[in-house]
Amino acid sequence: MPKVGWIGLGLIGKPMARRVVEAGFPVTIWNRTASKADDLVRAGAKIAATPREAAAASDILFTCVSDPPALEAVLWGADGVLAGLRPGSILVDSSTVSPALARRVAVACAERGAEFLEAPITGGTWGAEKGELVFLTGGDATTLDRARPVLDHLGKKLFHLGPYGAGQTIKLAMNLLYALEVQALAESLALVNASGIASEKLLDVLGSSMGRAPVLDVKAPMMTSANYPPSFPIRLMDKDLGLALELANQLGVPLPATAAARETYSAVKGASPEDVDYAAVRSFWRK
Amino acid sequence: MPKVGWIGLGLIGKPMARRVVEAGFPVTIWNRTASKADDLVRAGAKIAATPREAAAASDILFTCVSDPPALEAVLWGADGVLAGLRPGSILVDSSTVSPALARRVAVACAERGAEFLEAPITGGTWGAEKGELVFLTGGDATTLDRARPVLDHLGKKLFHLGPYGAGQTIKLAMNLLYALEVQALAESLALVNASGIASEKLLDVLGSSMGRAPVLDVKAPMMTSANYPPSFPIRLMDKDLGLALELANQLGVPLPATAAARETYSAVKGASPEDVDYAAVRSFWRK
Amino acid sequence: MPKVGWIGLGLIGKPMARRVVEAGFPVTIWNRTASKADDLVRAGAKIAATPREAAAASDILFTCVSDPPALEAVLWGADGVLAGLRPGSILVDSSTVSPALARRVAVACAERGAEFLEAPITGGTWGAEKGELVFLTGGDATTLDRARPVLDHLGKKLFHLGPYGAGQTIKLAMNLLYALEVQALAESLALVNASGIASEKLLDVLGSSMGRAPVLDVKAPMMTSANYPPSFPIRLMDKDLGLALELANQLGVPLPATAAARETYSAVKGASPEDVDYAAVRSFWRK
Amino acid sequence: MPKVGWIGLGLIGKPMARRVVEAGFPVTIWNRTASKADDLVRAGAKIAATPREAAAASDILFTCVSDPPALEAVLWGADGVLAGLRPGSILVDSSTVSPALARRVAVACAERGAEFLEAPITGGTWGAEKGELVFLTGGDATTLDRARPVLDHLGKKLFHLGPYGAGQTIKLAMNLLYALEVQALAESLALVNASGIASEKLLDVLGSSMGRAPVLDVKAPMMTSANYPPSFPIRLMDKDLGLALELANQLGVPLPATAAARETYSAVKGASPEDVDYAAVRSFWRK
Repeated sequence: MPKVGWIGLGLIGKPMARRVVEAGFPVTIWNRTASKADDLVRAGAKIAATPREAAAASDILFTCVSDPPALEAVLWGADGVLAGLRPGSILVDSSTVSPALARRVAVACAERGAEFLEAPITGGTWGAEKGELVFLTGGDATTLDRARPVLDHLGKKLFHLGPYGAGQTIKLAMNLLYALEVQALAESLALVNASGIASEKLLDVLGSSMGRAPVLDVKAPMMTSANYPPSFPIRLMDKDLGLALELANQLGVPLPATAAARETYSAVKGASPEDVDYAAVRSFWRK
Repeated sequence: MPKVGWIGLGLIGKPMARRVVEAGFPVTIWNRTASKADDLVRAGAKIAATPREAAAASDILFTCVSDPPALEAVLWGADGVLAGLRPGSILVDSSTVSPALARRVAVACAERGAEFLEAPITGGTWGAEKGELVFLTGGDATTLDRARPVLDHLGKKLFHLGPYGAGQTIKLAMNLLYALEVQALAESLALVNASGIASEKLLDVLGSSMGRAPVLDVKAPMMTSANYPPSFPIRLMDKDLGLALELANQLGVPLPATAAARETYSAVKGASPEDVDYAAVRSFWRK
Repeated sequence: MPKVGWIGLGLIGKPMARRVVEAGFPVTIWNRTASKADDLVRAGAKIAATPREAAAASDILFTCVSDPPALEAVLWGADGVLAGLRPGSILVDSSTVSPALARRVAVACAERGAEFLEAPITGGTWGAEKGELVFLTGGDATTLDRARPVLDHLGKKLFHLGPYGAGQTIKLAMNLLYALEVQALAESLALVNASGIASEKLLDVLGSSMGRAPVLDVKAPMMTSANYPPSFPIRLMDKDLGLALELANQLGVPLPATAAARETYSAVKGASPEDVDYAAVRSFWRK
Repeated sequence: MPKVGWIGLGLIGKPMARRVVEAGFPVTIWNRTASKADDLVRAGAKIAATPREAAAASDILFTCVSDPPALEAVLWGADGVLAGLRPGSILVDSSTVSPALARRVAVACAERGAEFLEAPITGGTWGAEKGELVFLTGGDATTLDRARPVLDHLGKKLFHLGPYGAGQTIKLAMNLLYALEVQALAESLALVNASGIASEKLLDVLGSSMGRAPVLDVKAPMMTSANYPPSFPIRLMDKDLGLALELANQLGVPLPATAAARETYSAVKGASPEDVDYAAVRSFWRK
């Protein structure tokens, strides 16, 4: 049974780590706020003092952090992962970052004789808790196969999408798509409500239309109740839209609706006091 | 059995009219291009020389034309419907127009002692052929009930959404939503393809995601094959986006992503030699 | 000395009419609200009971109304201008409307043996009062020459821009340009102020930069004081942006920044209780 | 006479460095491509082998590089500026970077007992050659005064705009404004040309209007000739729009027209084979 390392205990990372611990793997954890690991320690996990120590103790090391600077810090920072990564081990990164950063990580792993699996995920907290995440992997298929014994406890689907960068590109494209679908619902409701018509009228029609989508089934009640418990926080969606637009910019691809939606997400993120779900983009029209 | 009048034999109107004829109703047709009615005449329908004549011959008169000017012309023009509409008869309009125009039509009908049912539809040519349209009605529920014997042959769902204007408002909000969902797919694919990744990779992931939607299942193959047979022509979607933005403008509601998408639809509409489906918005990135 | 007719006494039309009266021309006025002409009547003008009567009394008839429907109403409505227009007379329209409507008016005049001069203006209330308007004319140069004796009292520049439609097209393009320049200042100030930096810092730099423009010199103090006395009301700018986007749409030309700015103008127009200058677009960020 | 160090010999940096050399200051240069300094060496400048060596030889060190990563590399990289910066010396950075990076540089300088002047510039190659740049400085006014003997040879205006970050914020706000003004001209011309009207008609009207601006006087001939010699390359404008949007995003300020324009700049940048001026945004409509 491979020794598993785990870095990152956020909204998604923590339920993932718990499933790995509960599946019986020996797990060593590092998190910026160590106390977040207390219950996992009671369940059998060990704590590492640094990312480097977590890497040194692992056959398969998972990282699941909030953004590119956070990933760069745990990898290249003082006492970082790359200083401890063992030859022959595997680094699996499930953070959402730029394809360019994924490629840099792959090179850094190769230089140390380790393997890298690019593995961003979709499915949210709920999917993480149930082991029903979807993994969007890039890199060598053989690395994916070596990681499967752990991944099978975490996800229901493991897509292998191509070389390094492909996983993150598809992840960003999917989040762009979600953001625009939810924006579409928000703009539709804004128009309907401003006309004095109840949201339910639109939602009834939507429900029996070709436009219905599971993500809208989940977000619509948040919008009608103006209550947005974070399934996927708007600050992360906003960050991912930024990464998608940056990638498109480097490729010279204009994304006009994404850029327009992003300004709306940005405004709501800025005006929101706490962590809210990205469905809160609806509140742009209720300031 | 009520005598039915029919005005408008476009992509949607003609299969609707055929179902009414085939259901055995006595039908009188007027169309700008009369020859389009030839096969319906062979099936038993009569031809009226003017909209006025069609109205005068009908208990229930349907109009299904392409845009607000077309509707104004058949109603208020020389020898128009309003000159022939009989007291006690019903006018059912299934065109997509502004809520304001729907309200004007309701007033004009009332002045002539006729009833009006605002009844835009969704479901496209396919739904029209199968009698599986969805009607988004506004006006008196009693008028809807009087029209049901005919509508039941045309649609699988009859929504009653509120007073005059509500049907068109929901219709425009739904088309805005479709347009942004399809734009979302187009922008996602543009990003993925520019990264050198095959469309199928994104579509595989989309298919098992919360973002999947029946409209995307239908439009994705058009985009991957760059072949856009018109189910709902881009010129009509472009027109409806214009109506939605005009309505939002009058209400002072900003719709930033819709406005951005509309410029894309507008550009593709302008560059397209023939009638193509609105999924052709994907070709914005392939000029 | 030609007999002058005048229809439209708005923010721009009234000071124009006054200059014509004061220059000694015999003037017959029609305005929807007749009392607005009281002081002009005291100064020697006559009142017509209908647009038709004003037309019938004139060698040169000016129309200066707020939007396309208003122009259509005074021309084609009951007792409208076209019913009274005399062969050999000239209709000068200084409203801002679509190029397509300008062409329709030209045809209608020609059918009655009258000449038409398309003559939208820039320069605002101030220019109208001082006789320093700029006329953007389309149509026959000979018609322009015949109208010069009156126009010379109203404007400092008479551009002849081409056939019918050219004047309105350039007018809409100029207003689009103004709207985006003012939007540029508003977005820059929004960014600077949100950073905790005083507006004056940006304005100092702007004043000695290649980006300075007279329109910004006029609008900047409105923005810094949040006080927007209407020089050019936002509802008219919003209407003109709508006309520009409609024209672009018909031509298949995407105008992404104009479309984005328009949503901002639309939102501010909707939220503004009274008539404010279009510089109030700055208040979009202060809701 | 202070010893001057110079890092960065790009389109702007090189003519600046030449003026300093020609003014008689002892100058030590480092540039990534050393050969670019050949003529300056013939004019008396010395070459440093590393940024560190240039810093160690200087009382006042200027950096003028293309973007944030380039600045980070020359400061924090191996043998970077910060390793050589002498206590009591001054670092003047004239690159355009984020306000956050400017603040980080200020802290790093203070830790080494050196002073920092944030000093981005406007005025382009032409201003750099003539010594007519405008400096947008942030930091201590005393540092600005100490740097004046050199800056006076380079610029005609030295704005002191506030604490660290203020200079870059105003710089980004100014570039956003330029970009939208030029976009405004491009969209206006696109509309006018698509209508079959010559650009000159619009430019004539613009020239006598309140919308005229020196930047448009410079860019209009580029657009009408479709010839875009780089005064300010589109890749740099695109980068600065990215920095402005990133800053706005962090502040939660939506910039809808800037975001829309940026997609246009991004598309043209991606499709342009060589370095072209940002006025080339006009070519978005000529693909």
